[in-house]
Amino acid sequence: MLTLKVKEMELDSGGPLIAVLNLEDSGDLGVRSQGRIKILHDTCQVTAIVNTTEKVIRKGEIGIYDEVKNNLHLRDEDLVGVTAAPTPQSLNYIRGKLRGRKLSYQEIYEIVDDVVHGNLSDAEVASFVTALHFRGLDLEETINISKAMVETGKTLKLGKEVVVDKHSIGGVPGDKTTLLVVPIVAACGLTIPKSSSRAITSAAGTADRAETLMPVILSIEEMKKVVNRANGCIVWGGALELSPADDIFIKVEFPLSIDPLLLPSILSKKKAVGSNSLVVDIPCGWGAKIKTLEEAHQLAGEFIELGKRLDIKIRCIVTYGSQPIGYTIGPALEAKEALENIMGQIWCEDLIDKATDIAGSILDMNGFTNGKEIALQTLKNGKAEEKLREIIDLQGGDTNLQPDDLPIGSSRYDIRSEKQGYLIWINNHALVEVARKAGTPKDKGAGIKLYKKTGDTVKNGDLLLTLFAEKGSKLEDAISTLESSKAMQVGKRMEMTMSEVKAVTTEVEDFILER
Amino acid sequence: MLTLKVKEMELDSGGPLIAVLNLEDSGDLGVRSQGRIKILHDTCQVTAIVNTTEKVIRKGEIGIYDEVKNNLHLRDEDLVGVTAAPTPQSLNYIRGKLRGRKLSYQEIYEIVDDVVHGNLSDAEVASFVTALHFRGLDLEETINISKAMVETGKTLKLGKEVVVDKHSIGGVPGDKTTLLVVPIVAACGLTIPKSSSRAITSAAGTADRAETLMPVILSIEEMKKVVNRANGCIVWGGALELSPADDIFIKVEFPLSIDPLLLPSILSKKKAVGSNSLVVDIPCGWGAKIKTLEEAHQLAGEFIELGKRLDIKIRCIVTYGSQPIGYTIGPALEAKEALENIMGQIWCEDLIDKATDIAGSILDMNGFTNGKEIALQTLKNGKAEEKLREIIDLQGGDTNLQPDDLPIGSSRYDIRSEKQGYLIWINNHALVEVARKAGTPKDKGAGIKLYKKTGDTVKNGDLLLTLFAEKGSKLEDAISTLESSKAMQVGKRMEMTMSEVKAVTTEVEDFILER
Repeated sequence: MLTLKVKEMELDSGGPLIAVLNLEDSGDLGVRSQGRIKILHDTCQVTAIVNTTEKVIRKGEIGIYDEVKNNLHLRDEDLVGVTAAPTPQSLNYIRGKLRGRKLSYQEIYEIVDDVVHGNLSDAEVASFVTALHFRGLDLEETINISKAMVETGKTLKLGKEVVVDKHSIGGVPGDKTTLLVVPIVAACGLTIPKSSSRAITSAAGTADRAETLMPVILSIEEMKKVVNRANGCIVWGGALELSPADDIFIKVEFPLSIDPLLLPSILSKKKAVGSNSLVVDIPCGWGAKIKTLEEAHQLAGEFIELGKRLDIKIRCIVTYGSQPIGYTIGPALEAKEALENIMGQIWCEDLIDKATDIAGSILDMNGFTNGKEIALQTLKNGKAEEKLREIIDLQGGDTNLQPDDLPIGSSRYDIRSEKQGYLIWINNHALVEVARKAGTPKDKGAGIKLYKKTGDTVKNGDLLLTLFAEKGSKLEDAISTLESSKAMQVGKRMEMTMSEVKAVTTEVEDFILER
Repeated sequence: MLTLKVKEMELDSGGPLIAVLNLEDSGDLGVRSQGRIKILHDTCQVTAIVNTTEKVIRKGEIGIYDEVKNNLHLRDEDLVGVTAAPTPQSLNYIRGKLRGRKLSYQEIYEIVDDVVHGNLSDAEVASFVTALHFRGLDLEETINISKAMVETGKTLKLGKEVVVDKHSIGGVPGDKTTLLVVPIVAACGLTIPKSSSRAITSAAGTADRAETLMPVILSIEEMKKVVNRANGCIVWGGALELSPADDIFIKVEFPLSIDPLLLPSILSKKKAVGSNSLVVDIPCGWGAKIKTLEEAHQLAGEFIELGKRLDIKIRCIVTYGSQPIGYTIGPALEAKEALENIMGQIWCEDLIDKATDIAGSILDMNGFTNGKEIALQTLKNGKAEEKLREIIDLQGGDTNLQPDDLPIGSSRYDIRSEKQGYLIWINNHALVEVARKAGTPKDKGAGIKLYKKTGDTVKNGDLLLTLFAEKGSKLEDAISTLESSKAMQVGKRMEMTMSEVKAVTTEVEDFILER
């Protein structure tokens, strides 16, 4: 063991724990660049990846990145103990899974724990996830990995007997349902500590939408205060460290479009906030992630079975997902539409129906009768709006916020129909791509407003949609993407050909179920 | 595109290309820490991983690690262009392989090319390799990946019609055969541009052994000069950049003990030096990597088939691998033994037999008759020694080197038998572990000298082995490892029990075929 003096590098690696050693010290430890060391300080220790230098860090010193500094609460000149890190035992279990061996709880726990503590390299984590993709997990392993993901993260303890939740596996643009469901359910007296994700491939995640209404980056203690007062909250899950292993797994899964940990990922986060009653929305249809009712029912069955074993009562609702929900896509546009609906200024049939179905189902599962009707009443009598404003207030937003206060992008472009007939279909993927070119999810005011939905009659010259962007250059990008893509089709009822394929294309979309 | 001013960080990441951006610049590029940027300078460009900082690097500057500096030949104050790197197209092909799709040559080439240029993350490479492990490669894909690995690296062009080579898949300790084969074959007039690897899990690789006789870190141009003069060489492959993709793949495969690219890996490196006639040694037996003749023949068949398609004539020799070759383990001890044998000072039956079988086979494949006999003669008449000394000289070593010049560790410890009988078995793995504890492969003078081989009679008090180390503390480690392991067994011919298993053990050895 070497004793080395800390020198802050003031560098942020974006996740990995990096330490810089002088070549002489790394030689003495028998560790090369890219090798792993254990750094000990007081009673804490972390494993870090080594970078080496001949000059910047002298013999007897250790340069630390911000991630190491924060993890061990180190300061310049602190002394730390440093040893070569042994190969983690969990690597043996990963090899076991590669060979098809079933893993025990203890083994899974060690893998997950080592993932969280940076003891496994990116490559090793990627191989584990890929092995799961091929070998699969049986029910017991799925339960065990869900539990391990909860135990290696923070948890929210509300001390309530019933804690409800909702989750959508996503894939439908414009789905602002959660912004209605949470206030409805909370207004009815149920506890719903909702944490949401940001968009990865979509135009807006619930956290992105909600952030235009109120702050969503809360600590778990702040979240607890809000829920104790208002019965509900809408916060970003990323700041809560509820299932830190999952945040690492998803970084690996996403670029590869594989998703072997979908169920453990979702349910571990629900379990971590103490939910024991959950409605899962499975959008289904052309342009959604789940294409057939059979697939949807298969997935629903898996959710329910796993839920039972984790003591979470689950109902799944398979919803129509072949076109956007409501008429807007993009964080601020969607938040505005949700606010207008909850205030009764407008009434989007599909949005209201979906929100009250889900809220109603949650109510029905927990002692209410005719939940759908109660949910509708709660919207109509202003209780839901009142609750939303309470949550906005408690999370630090402006309780008097009006729809027109939301900043919508000022660069705009209208698209009108050049023929007449019906709106035959809408292409979800194309709309998302256009919205992202316009700047979503980063530019909160960017997005799309639709004027027609599938089945609507369209006259020549009718407005089909408006593009919104915060920057003119992005509006141009969005317009050219829209012009080269098939976003929607106006035609007669019998125009069957959707497109002709004339050359091989190898493009595969970025696509992952939300969690 | 941003234009940024280079600031050298003087840090070595150990492989990955890392650049440090000020948070403002990374924000402008829309890239986060861990994201990828393209750095352009003159006509060259590389993809690098981003780390961020608020202070160390100011807005308008870019901090570069040594790997980026060397790749782009940059200096302090140089101006470079920087853009966010797009997702590489090859990621789509990796996803295709994950779904079981057969890859075309062009697709494989792009993957390999992006691996070499750092355009794919460690996690993405790991997932690709793991997918290959599960999905496998058909013959055509195996050919194509071998070719792509050659084309993305450097090649040695000797302009000779016949270029021969040997390769051992390794696994047997003490295997210094190559140090005899190369001089024998080269002395007979055949061209053998031998590149070798260093030990990963073994006690010594051929490059480690040879390095105690002469410099082995040569550039490809230097290697060419030596071969043009002497017909042969013995150099370290790691410095030649023959198949840089493989060097990256192997880093992923090794910790996971998977090896889907074994054949392309080996044959691409042979192809890169222009070999068209190859003998592959497949050690087989208890304690070797290949345990049965059936496995050995299966592997041999695959080598020969793939060789045909790559225009490399291949013969495989399955050799007895249940105990070390010769009597020494450890770089300098093995080099000394090889030198003593080639000088005729000693005569290790198994080493000489194996070396002349392999050399003989190479001769037989290329116009000689009775190659084994010719190989033996070449050893006995001093031509092989003469050739070895010529190679040593050309590679920059001392042509008059004597066996006693080799620095053997001065910390020594003898193990004597405490009973009499026969040496019933030797445990290769245990000996390697003991040798590594003693300091091999890093401490060149560390290792083991055996006095008995399997079947030898042993008297009470007979020397069984001597441990050598350069440092006393490592000798202690080696002794205690030896005492707690079963390295060899002296007993009567009928003592059948090798060990009793009383508790579950999950240890899996680090084990990979050499390439």
